[in-house]
Amino acid sequence: MADVRDEGRATAAVGGPGPSGKAPMREALIEAAFQLFVEHGFERTTVDDIVARAGVGRRSFFRYFPSKEDVVFPDHERCLTEMSAFLATSTDGEPLDVICDAARLVMRMYAANPEFSVQRYRLTREVPSLRGYELSVVHRYERTMAHYLRQRYAGDPNGALRAEVQAAAIVAAHNNGLRTWLRSGGHGDGAPAVDQSLAFVRQTWGSARESAESGAAPAPPSEEDDVVVIVAPRKAPLWRVVQKIEKALGDD
Amino acid sequence: MADVRDEGRATAAVGGPGPSGKAPMREALIEAAFQLFVEHGFERTTVDDIVARAGVGRRSFFRYFPSKEDVVFPDHERCLTEMSAFLATSTDGEPLDVICDAARLVMRMYAANPEFSVQRYRLTREVPSLRGYELSVVHRYERTMAHYLRQRYAGDPNGALRAEVQAAAIVAAHNNGLRTWLRSGGHGDGAPAVDQSLAFVRQTWGSARESAESGAAPAPPSEEDDVVVIVAPRKAPLWRVVQKIEKALGDD
Repeated sequence: MADVRDEGRATAAVGGPGPSGKAPMREALIEAAFQLFVEHGFERTTVDDIVARAGVGRRSFFRYFPSKEDVVFPDHERCLTEMSAFLATSTDGEPLDVICDAARLVMRMYAANPEFSVQRYRLTREVPSLRGYELSVVHRYERTMAHYLRQRYAGDPNGALRAEVQAAAIVAAHNNGLRTWLRSGGHGDGAPAVDQSLAFVRQTWGSARESAESGAAPAPPSEEDDVVVIVAPRKAPLWRVVQKIEKALGDD
Repeated sequence: MADVRDEGRATAAVGGPGPSGKAPMREALIEAAFQLFVEHGFERTTVDDIVARAGVGRRSFFRYFPSKEDVVFPDHERCLTEMSAFLATSTDGEPLDVICDAARLVMRMYAANPEFSVQRYRLTREVPSLRGYELSVVHRYERTMAHYLRQRYAGDPNGALRAEVQAAAIVAAHNNGLRTWLRSGGHGDGAPAVDQSLAFVRQTWGSARESAESGAAPAPPSEEDDVVVIVAPRKAPLWRVVQKIEKALGDD
């Protein structure tokens, strides 16, 4: 789900294993393809080069990958399927929290193989056709999320709009966190950067659940008739007032 | 900036003029191309077919359009340039309001030729390569907006994240409004649908300016030391509290 930006070109490091998976031939093709992309560039590498390096027939390549672009993003289909399955069973819970958890599936896929993810990030920034491919994948994640939210907001006259705006915001936040991790070379745990970015969006729409991963203590249970009073200067911007409310609700 | 969705296929209406512009040959090519796309489909129409119908040479086509996809979106480059110029001179004002105005430039481009816009919308939903092209164009608008917001939020440690999330949200809202208008067949004024969607996002982040177009009375000027007190049950969800605040700030 990483986005690509027009920054300085980076040279991908040589080597690096393919992502973990079950089919050895598929893995061999991914590894051969990445070796060749790094050595000769994506555009100058042909499918014939890849199958020769992997020691398999040309038809084997197309059994696993519809195109040369697909070999660069071998796990998105599986991740999209996983996300749809997760959302199909998540009929409870704050909708935005569910969507944040869905977004974390993508981060987890990247984190499963940091070296491969960083190589791909660098490659994608250099090759226009891969950028295009990536945009379409990001769009599919966003649509999957928006579709879920639309269903959850079915009673809301602004439900479709709310769903689309929130899905776009969550995807943007996820990608911001993911890019931070990828730019750092994929060192350490990438999840906190994504959690932090997602928390920003959740805060925007006032999601109630405390993040279990953040280690923050959950808000104590409160009496139903308990009240919170906020006093703020009229000139204060609304976001600052919201910040105050959240602080007041969290302190207790 | 219209997005595409996987809805029922629609058949494009025959005819329809190209978008307004200055170069007659360019206009003739756009008109010929759309006639052929409608008659034979996008994929089955070649550049040779287009130049034959327009009565010009093949080189003339490529003088105006790098590819067959570009002839479908002839005005986005101009609109992107216009947006960049607008943002470059908009150094004052609530950043989110400026971005909403920037988004309205895109709606205005679509509204300049409703029939053409609706034809293109239908065509884009049917042709995968056009969807890909459109996604890349939408991404460029989003990047242009995020770039502007990042500069405006330069002092904010979360500035880049805020900029990217807000740009994504604004683009999603704009496209929601635009699609509402396109699906209606481009009848009437499309601007209110877009304004309404944009107002949803502005409200999310508590933009202060009242929309001049909405006809709502602007909030009266207030004393600096004026205060607002909000009393809410602790169990109230945050969005309801925010709604109360907005009402309190607006009522006076």
